[in-house]
Amino acid sequence: MANSLKRIILGQPLATAAEKHERLGKISGLAVFSSDALSSVAYGTEEILLILVTAGTAALTLGLPIMVGIVVLVVIVAISYWQTIHAYPSGGGAYIVAKDNLGTLPGLIAGAALLIDYVLTVAVSTAAGVAAITSAFPPLYPWRVTLCVLSVIGVTIANLRGLRESGRLFTVPTYWFIGSMFLLTLAGLWRVVNGTVQPLPAEHVTATNALTIFLILRAFSSGCATLTGIEAVSNGIPAFRQPEPRNASITLAWMAGILGGTSIGMAFLAHAYGVIPRETETVVSMLARGIFGESLLYFNIQVATALILFLAVNTSFQDFPRLSSIMAKDGFMPRQMANRGDKLVFSNGILILAAVSIVLLIVFQGSVNALIPLYAVGVFLSFTLSQAGMVRHWLKEEHPAPHHILLNGLGAVSTGVVLLVIASTKFTHGAWMVIVLIPVIVLGFVRVHRHYQLVAERLSLAGAARPRIGKNPVVVLVAGIHKGVVEALEYAKSISPNVTALTVDLDPTQTTKLRLRWAEWEPDVPLVVLESPYRSILRPLLEYIDRMERQGEGRYLTVVLPEFIPSHWWEHFLHNQTALLVKAALLFKPGKVTVSIPYHL
Amino acid sequence: MANSLKRIILGQPLATAAEKHERLGKISGLAVFSSDALSSVAYGTEEILLILVTAGTAALTLGLPIMVGIVVLVVIVAISYWQTIHAYPSGGGAYIVAKDNLGTLPGLIAGAALLIDYVLTVAVSTAAGVAAITSAFPPLYPWRVTLCVLSVIGVTIANLRGLRESGRLFTVPTYWFIGSMFLLTLAGLWRVVNGTVQPLPAEHVTATNALTIFLILRAFSSGCATLTGIEAVSNGIPAFRQPEPRNASITLAWMAGILGGTSIGMAFLAHAYGVIPRETETVVSMLARGIFGESLLYFNIQVATALILFLAVNTSFQDFPRLSSIMAKDGFMPRQMANRGDKLVFSNGILILAAVSIVLLIVFQGSVNALIPLYAVGVFLSFTLSQAGMVRHWLKEEHPAPHHILLNGLGAVSTGVVLLVIASTKFTHGAWMVIVLIPVIVLGFVRVHRHYQLVAERLSLAGAARPRIGKNPVVVLVAGIHKGVVEALEYAKSISPNVTALTVDLDPTQTTKLRLRWAEWEPDVPLVVLESPYRSILRPLLEYIDRMERQGEGRYLTVVLPEFIPSHWWEHFLHNQTALLVKAALLFKPGKVTVSIPYHL
Repeated sequence: MANSLKRIILGQPLATAAEKHERLGKISGLAVFSSDALSSVAYGTEEILLILVTAGTAALTLGLPIMVGIVVLVVIVAISYWQTIHAYPSGGGAYIVAKDNLGTLPGLIAGAALLIDYVLTVAVSTAAGVAAITSAFPPLYPWRVTLCVLSVIGVTIANLRGLRESGRLFTVPTYWFIGSMFLLTLAGLWRVVNGTVQPLPAEHVTATNALTIFLILRAFSSGCATLTGIEAVSNGIPAFRQPEPRNASITLAWMAGILGGTSIGMAFLAHAYGVIPRETETVVSMLARGIFGESLLYFNIQVATALILFLAVNTSFQDFPRLSSIMAKDGFMPRQMANRGDKLVFSNGILILAAVSIVLLIVFQGSVNALIPLYAVGVFLSFTLSQAGMVRHWLKEEHPAPHHILLNGLGAVSTGVVLLVIASTKFTHGAWMVIVLIPVIVLGFVRVHRHYQLVAERLSLAGAARPRIGKNPVVVLVAGIHKGVVEALEYAKSISPNVTALTVDLDPTQTTKLRLRWAEWEPDVPLVVLESPYRSILRPLLEYIDRMERQGEGRYLTVVLPEFIPSHWWEHFLHNQTALLVKAALLFKPGKVTVSIPYHL
Repeated sequence: MANSLKRIILGQPLATAAEKHERLGKISGLAVFSSDALSSVAYGTEEILLILVTAGTAALTLGLPIMVGIVVLVVIVAISYWQTIHAYPSGGGAYIVAKDNLGTLPGLIAGAALLIDYVLTVAVSTAAGVAAITSAFPPLYPWRVTLCVLSVIGVTIANLRGLRESGRLFTVPTYWFIGSMFLLTLAGLWRVVNGTVQPLPAEHVTATNALTIFLILRAFSSGCATLTGIEAVSNGIPAFRQPEPRNASITLAWMAGILGGTSIGMAFLAHAYGVIPRETETVVSMLARGIFGESLLYFNIQVATALILFLAVNTSFQDFPRLSSIMAKDGFMPRQMANRGDKLVFSNGILILAAVSIVLLIVFQGSVNALIPLYAVGVFLSFTLSQAGMVRHWLKEEHPAPHHILLNGLGAVSTGVVLLVIASTKFTHGAWMVIVLIPVIVLGFVRVHRHYQLVAERLSLAGAARPRIGKNPVVVLVAGIHKGVVEALEYAKSISPNVTALTVDLDPTQTTKLRLRWAEWEPDVPLVVLESPYRSILRPLLEYIDRMERQGEGRYLTVVLPEFIPSHWWEHFLHNQTALLVKAALLFKPGKVTVSIPYHL
């Protein structure tokens, strides 16, 4: 039942041998890996303007120059990653590059930063996607948290179904969004050139902040969310068709071009149309409404925006499990993160990502503005570490090419400076949480790693002697004599010549009866009756078992428990409580083995 | 740690041999068993008046005659139980009497009815006790649900500490309450005789109902809550000192006299002082305020009332676990209800009662008026069955005494008629829930009983042959070769000459390595490598185990799992997932025994 439900939702299992065919070309690769970066067009300009407008509407003119600065950063980072892809064709991104070149700790910091940002991408993009829908259909606004949760569940299922199907699912919407954005930009420009711009209705805004350098930098920091996801391609190189680095780097270039173009386009149009950001409607929605009116074209923009944002969520669903599996193989995360499910995907990573981001969406009530200050710190930290690692990588070569060092050095310095700007301007608005969380996660990585190392040392057979076990004593716990007990005793006799039965005297009449029947049925197994003045069953048993051990009888003491397996689940409550308690009590005692002999009713 | 906390809360354990000394005399017996009945003085009159007042203030004059009728019923029921106590000196009350004389089903119905009413007694009395406090200290009103829950927890702990200490704890408050009620009644009467009654301020009440016979019967039904708890003594006879029946019946007579006197007293005073029932203050509080003014005597009445109500809760904490243990010994409830804890009390019954009544108090927001319609149906059902059973009991004697038959017959008929009145007048106000619940619980009893019977039959050794077990095959699941695996293999070799190691091939490189090292360390144990095209660990293992069984290799197949016992709880998440899954999958398969060989890290 449960299994067939699983098959309906997830489809047929895929054999390990099928893996090679699950690869992406440039077209589908762009769809799968670029949606995170491209979708930030939906909120990048808005987040800049939302900060600027607190200093009054006049400050909004700074939106376009700030966006130009951000796009310059996009180009620098894209060039840096172009070099990374070619130097690390097997993928892994910031974690691997930092770990290889800067050492384990920087690698782990990059890993923690990336994992946090993947979770935030899911939360922010889902919230923004739902905002695109509620902008077009305001009555849905009260349902936004529910819509967010349902969207994440939908993407989770799509990903559990397997990578190729993801590519197939996501190609059409990505290109639809790219097309729609170009259409919006061109139509908007045409009206500007034509002189038929209808300025949006002016609103009165009360300035609450002064237009300080700090505020401008905060606006820039918020806009830097545009860059999140740009590293997705470099993490996912192995998912591309051969030659992977070539396909991946071309995809990256396309992506950076489209991202830069549409971002500048939106910022320019927002300026030209005099958009004043509002809580109830997104900037893209206001622009589309102003350019197309409430036509089908307007709704097309909103639907395409919502879809690309849900696909951005998908990028994280590709990269979070992949990075987790790499870190798990290195022993920094629990091993089960490296297990592939029966659809060839890392199911545990997918499920954990879904769970954490759903919690975030509920806690932050599905609000993009509430989530944004947490965002981008992690990404810029990983950019900086990755580019610094690349600089180190080139320096280690015998004849390093100066332009390699220069380009990655430019990347490292510029992203490092931006990281400081983001961390300081958004610190009190939420970035502190991420700054606190990163060392906590890194500590977790270190402890997991130390644990696995310790286990490996303890378990190593190097120089180990073979343990002497011999024939061990067996005790069988009995409360009466019936078929289940006789089975258990026979089993005990089959595994050891040294079998004792133990019972606790709770009722003298019952115990006398038991002794009589015992002599008849099991004369060859000694029956030890333990006194229990305080009616506890557990204590006398544990004391007896301890005494046996002190007398040094063998390496293991096997405790056999006759256990009923009832035919209905509720019948469990009517039996076996003692067996459960005994097992729990003996679990942490060395040298004790408990065996339940099931008796099926 | 956990154990020493338990000792601080519950005190030192009591030996089984200490049981005889844990008995009650008449003075302490009255304190322990009468508080339920007596405490209804606190709300009996009020509940009658609350129904009558819906037909206008003129209808309130019917309060006194209705209470007189209820007190007549008290006398009839008390005489009936006097006879029961002497006929059944070993106690057990309605369940035993009905089962012995009318058959199992009526016995179970009586048992279910009583258990429900014990839970309701806890809920109603706690709510009324808290109402007495909030009448005197109105600012506490918003905290009433919290106060209710804390009270139940307090009484629970007192009861888990043991029976004798309960008697000691509760003697003073019971007699304090009795004295206070007599004082209130006498002071009130003195003023009436003296002519110094100050009538309470008149309030305007809008009549919402007509004064029909049905309404009068509903008022009577609500007042019948006065009788709940009157059977407590007959259930608890074995708790008295010898001669138990004499001590118990004298206690019963005292109780009925005090109950009847104070109930009539309250109803008379309410009439004489013109009390109009209100939501914000109890009737007893209004009377005490009218008679004593806001003096210390007034607060004394409120505190004594609250205390007796918390003691009423205690009566249920005596009887619910005792009845459960009797029914558990008869096989109608899970056996663990019959286990005595280390303070000689039936701890499981106490804990279940506490949990269910806390839920009720939270659901009904600690309101007496909301809970009252559920109350009394169960008690009158058990009265009727018990008295009918007594009639049958006398008829079975060779020379039945006519007055015995007559008195119990009168009891049966009158409580039966009242039962019908209560069930019909309160049906839509909540009694339906109880009427639905009783058959459900009875069905539960029957199914539990049937299960235990079935188990006893299946397990019976009558005519059974001794099972042939012989040497069973053992398989050891391994994922690599290390100290833990070697331990497990040595253990397996010690219990069987037929040991096979099983591993699943998830990574050909690893598997090849394993084969090489295996040949070196364990050349005498065959290593079977299972293919797993879909990367599942579980499925190939289970398929192999199934195949082994189909080839008919012995009665049991023992599956040995090397398991790590880490030193910190969180490290469990880093290991053993496969072992857990295998154990869960094999639990319900007959003939499979799983053994974890612990390796302590």
